[in-house]
Amino acid sequence: MLEVAEALATVLSHTKPLKTEVAALTTAALGQVLAVDILADLDSPPFAKVLRDGYAVRAADCAAPGAPLKVIEEVPAGKVPTKPVGAGDATRIFTGAPIPDGADAVVMQEDTRRAGDVVTITDSAVKPRQWVFAQGTEMKAGAVVLKAGTPINPAAFGVLASVGKTAVPAFPFPRVGVIATGDELIEANMKPKPGQIRNSNGPMLTALTVRGGGLPRYLGIARDDRAITRSLVAEGLEVSDVVLLCGGVSVGDYDLVPQVLTDLGVTTHFRQVLVKPGKPLLFGTGPKGQLVFGLPGNPASSFVGFELFVRPAIRILGGHAEPGPRTITLPTAEGIAESNDRPTYRPAQLVQGATGWTVRILPWGGAPDLAGLQPADALVALPAGDTRADPGTPVSVVLL
Amino acid sequence: MLEVAEALATVLSHTKPLKTEVAALTTAALGQVLAVDILADLDSPPFAKVLRDGYAVRAADCAAPGAPLKVIEEVPAGKVPTKPVGAGDATRIFTGAPIPDGADAVVMQEDTRRAGDVVTITDSAVKPRQWVFAQGTEMKAGAVVLKAGTPINPAAFGVLASVGKTAVPAFPFPRVGVIATGDELIEANMKPKPGQIRNSNGPMLTALTVRGGGLPRYLGIARDDRAITRSLVAEGLEVSDVVLLCGGVSVGDYDLVPQVLTDLGVTTHFRQVLVKPGKPLLFGTGPKGQLVFGLPGNPASSFVGFELFVRPAIRILGGHAEPGPRTITLPTAEGIAESNDRPTYRPAQLVQGATGWTVRILPWGGAPDLAGLQPADALVALPAGDTRADPGTPVSVVLL
Repeated sequence: MLEVAEALATVLSHTKPLKTEVAALTTAALGQVLAVDILADLDSPPFAKVLRDGYAVRAADCAAPGAPLKVIEEVPAGKVPTKPVGAGDATRIFTGAPIPDGADAVVMQEDTRRAGDVVTITDSAVKPRQWVFAQGTEMKAGAVVLKAGTPINPAAFGVLASVGKTAVPAFPFPRVGVIATGDELIEANMKPKPGQIRNSNGPMLTALTVRGGGLPRYLGIARDDRAITRSLVAEGLEVSDVVLLCGGVSVGDYDLVPQVLTDLGVTTHFRQVLVKPGKPLLFGTGPKGQLVFGLPGNPASSFVGFELFVRPAIRILGGHAEPGPRTITLPTAEGIAESNDRPTYRPAQLVQGATGWTVRILPWGGAPDLAGLQPADALVALPAGDTRADPGTPVSVVLL
Repeated sequence: MLEVAEALATVLSHTKPLKTEVAALTTAALGQVLAVDILADLDSPPFAKVLRDGYAVRAADCAAPGAPLKVIEEVPAGKVPTKPVGAGDATRIFTGAPIPDGADAVVMQEDTRRAGDVVTITDSAVKPRQWVFAQGTEMKAGAVVLKAGTPINPAAFGVLASVGKTAVPAFPFPRVGVIATGDELIEANMKPKPGQIRNSNGPMLTALTVRGGGLPRYLGIARDDRAITRSLVAEGLEVSDVVLLCGGVSVGDYDLVPQVLTDLGVTTHFRQVLVKPGKPLLFGTGPKGQLVFGLPGNPASSFVGFELFVRPAIRILGGHAEPGPRTITLPTAEGIAESNDRPTYRPAQLVQGATGWTVRILPWGGAPDLAGLQPADALVALPAGDTRADPGTPVSVVLL
């Protein structure tokens, strides 16, 4: 049986970034990854820009405090100065305006006194270039302002707008088809009859996909019937880059999923991983390279399988450089004393302390206990065998 | 001038959670906060559930290995057993099915041998209750499964589905109207003429709003004209819980924003904060309690002002218990040697080390430098005055 790291390596060996598309600069693109370097089309600022409301002057004219200067023009932001500032001149100017020719500094209006067309500079320490943001300080025309591979975060939105890029080549969000399996399942809006149970995995995996950077499409419940299952999986392979099947991958007679996958040309690379919860976990690839995951039916197992294997695949498909999962070593907040027959991932919460984080394992009822897992923002990875750890002992943590 | 903590306290003293609405359980609700306790409508599992494919037996019948049992029925998941398991009986059963009356354990099929209607148990250690998930183990009918105030994360999606809640009372995402100000601004899809500059704050604040848990609505650029500015701000107050104005709040003649706010019945609570970047930062409240922020025009200042003041307000409006910003102490990855005239927030990145995070201050050109800030996932807070810190020295970090 594969270890977690081997299984993840197998998944990633079949995963490569999707073909890039053009993304419009709307919030729908937030979190996509740039596919090309972005160049500045102009210097930024495109002109030497005034940073304070006040007066554009020659610093040399203001060596002594109380210097009176003649106000020759007034230039609000958005307007362009028309007169050069000569010796003894000043231009009334506002934040965001270009500095007039001849002027080399701005004096804040708080440091001036105005009477008619004469302004008196009361600041005794006017330095050249003060409150002037020189042309091209932030970026020069032609310079790379964002590199290919950069995730489009809010600041990147601003940078893209500043260089006039309202549509950029980017990796699309991977399309993830979600299929639940099992005759016992009904949808959440129905009342269970005896032997029935509501489908919690569908909504959960759909939401996990969004959090993981994918575009989910819930395809429904595949009953334990070969034709129905085949039709849903075929639809999933048609419309998705990743197909998630939930349940139906252990060794029972009614587990049609592996047979259906074979029928549809999916090559299975592994069916089990040495991990708790979530040992039965199928990974395969479809005829067009689609990734297919058969996750366990227990919701917490499915959750852990998603975070360990599916989310990293979604990241790589979506153009991220690092697949994750993000793991880190943190001190355990409480003592740990337990034995596990396999490497085990326990739902946990980060605890913000005065000098950094610690991590606390949550009380949890095992694979079927989704409510116990709900507050988790991390998983603590415990090795197989006995774990005895005092509070403060470093443990390995997967961030969700 | 207010310190950051005083200014934030002022903002929060005028901020209370929005009126709750009913949220449908679609991914659009991901990140909303539950307004009521959620109760289980049924025990979960609603019946003692079989956890492995195999045979339901009486453990006492299997005390010795090799016990032959008579297979009396076959029950796939979704079906209900009809025959009680008596002494010497077994029921062929599959994961997810209810356990038949009389049986108290499940033997995995790997631990059995079948011949006709006789199954031989090859496992010598059948324990009562093995592979049986007792009724109500995860939750009892009427028990609280999610508390009011819980953010609806992917696991909560699953829990809500499992108890049949496809629509729940929740705090809505706050509506945030975004207005840029300044005659020098043009939209990102236009080519700047002399003196003009593209509006980067609008797209950035829109994206920050999404990341911060709000629903943004970009209202456009308010030119330096009283009627236009008034009309846009009035629209913002009409359609938003929070109005963000960007630029136009320093002391210049053309800064119409404060006058317009007064005209529209907005009470201004402060106009400056002792912080760098971003000193000119206005906060007011509208006639219906709308929050109004006048953020600085420099994009990095606007970004920092958003994270320190707007994002916490959005969280509280949206029903979160903690406003943030999330701050933590981490060792600096590199030495720091600088002087600041005000408390200063520097764009920074978390660095994942073997034993935890450190934080590295990014090279940065100051308030107008948005490209330099773009990779930041944190801000390092430095006090006014001299900071001299060797690598490894703890510094205060705001997480973005």
